[in-house]
Amino acid sequence: MPTAGVVIIGNEILSGKFADENTPWLVRRLRELGCDLLRVAVIPDTLAEIAAEVAAQSERFDWVFTTGGVGPTHDDLTFAGIAQAFGVPLHHHPDLTAILRAKLGEACNEAALRMAEIPEGSALWWDGGVVYPLVVTRNVCIFPGVPSLLKLKFDKVAHRFAGTPLSVRRLHTHQQESAIADRLTEAAARWPAVAIGSYPRLDEVPMRVIVTLEGRDESALAASAAFLLDGAVGLTEAP
Amino acid sequence: MPTAGVVIIGNEILSGKFADENTPWLVRRLRELGCDLLRVAVIPDTLAEIAAEVAAQSERFDWVFTTGGVGPTHDDLTFAGIAQAFGVPLHHHPDLTAILRAKLGEACNEAALRMAEIPEGSALWWDGGVVYPLVVTRNVCIFPGVPSLLKLKFDKVAHRFAGTPLSVRRLHTHQQESAIADRLTEAAARWPAVAIGSYPRLDEVPMRVIVTLEGRDESALAASAAFLLDGAVGLTEAP
Repeated sequence: MPTAGVVIIGNEILSGKFADENTPWLVRRLRELGCDLLRVAVIPDTLAEIAAEVAAQSERFDWVFTTGGVGPTHDDLTFAGIAQAFGVPLHHHPDLTAILRAKLGEACNEAALRMAEIPEGSALWWDGGVVYPLVVTRNVCIFPGVPSLLKLKFDKVAHRFAGTPLSVRRLHTHQQESAIADRLTEAAARWPAVAIGSYPRLDEVPMRVIVTLEGRDESALAASAAFLLDGAVGLTEAP
Repeated sequence: MPTAGVVIIGNEILSGKFADENTPWLVRRLRELGCDLLRVAVIPDTLAEIAAEVAAQSERFDWVFTTGGVGPTHDDLTFAGIAQAFGVPLHHHPDLTAILRAKLGEACNEAALRMAEIPEGSALWWDGGVVYPLVVTRNVCIFPGVPSLLKLKFDKVAHRFAGTPLSVRRLHTHQQESAIADRLTEAAARWPAVAIGSYPRLDEVPMRVIVTLEGRDESALAASAAFLLDGAVGLTEAP
């Protein structure tokens, strides 16, 4: 299955000036697509932070999705940070420069042209006949931070990241989590292809513990569920 | 000012089974407290990931807040991961063991006692006369993942992380971001104590760009705001 990491580049998220709409949306879309998200990092707009996080994630995952920092202002450092991550220079890409000039006309000043200054060797993805392509440096897909734009641009290229979606079973119990812990440990050991999670919902009355079984091997899922639903454990299917 | 990082330990967040309520809440509370949040990492429940992220954040920030992975089941690896981060063993803390035995009675099995097995040398914080203390290993405060419990426990100890809250000014314009970029760059260079951010709101009609000025030096804030509000730039106070 394809794996992915997300890098949210934004002081405005860390400082709480704006809510992070992008992470919850990407989490949901990647789940639907069957692409395994293995890390999200929210980092400040600095060259060193961007370079370090992107370099580390790029090495570990099939895909890295960055959001934010691609506009024309002084705090837009994503392209420069990614260039630094891979030790390549920035260059004004002629195709992007031409699009910006055509679109902005007289307003296409030096600041605007910073948006066309991308890491050397980047690919441009034109999927879906877009007017402005997605910039992709190695396995790093560089998305805007504006939520509506991110969604639009991500959905054009989403087919490239698709795997097999996970299947999930949900069980629950009104017992304490510790009462089912041993049985869960045993199930986790017997069916390593099934990811078993246990989540107390203390806010609910009566309190309950939700147990999730997740995986892509349907027979292992069914067998582990049957093992946990069996008799003395006290787990039942969650509605 | 105190600095902080957050480590959200949870496959269930990455896989989208549960929404992450803890990050938005911590972001807001840290802002109110005047504690500068510099990084959020959402990572899987594995020893290696927990150890690596906690070790890195602990070295860089005054405080690290982890959430999740402190229950009695097989997927609760936070204490073990933090012990590994600092190269110390786990041990059953006698005070925690006693509380669990008193609270759970006969239900206090071996699984439940895993919750009392914490990194050697950890401190217990009893702020606010709580029944169950917060476990703190060096500068790492170990919170539960259940949102209602996290909030309750964080607020008991929040006074320890307090600094001076940031002041913020919001300006806006209906021009393109590139039209104000040069002026923002100049302001950022002239008032380094002021963090200047620029955020296009393309979903709004008419489109506008919000510019935020943030800092703790009131005279620098006032001066940079005056510089940007002056005349030809086209920025005005945001409502």
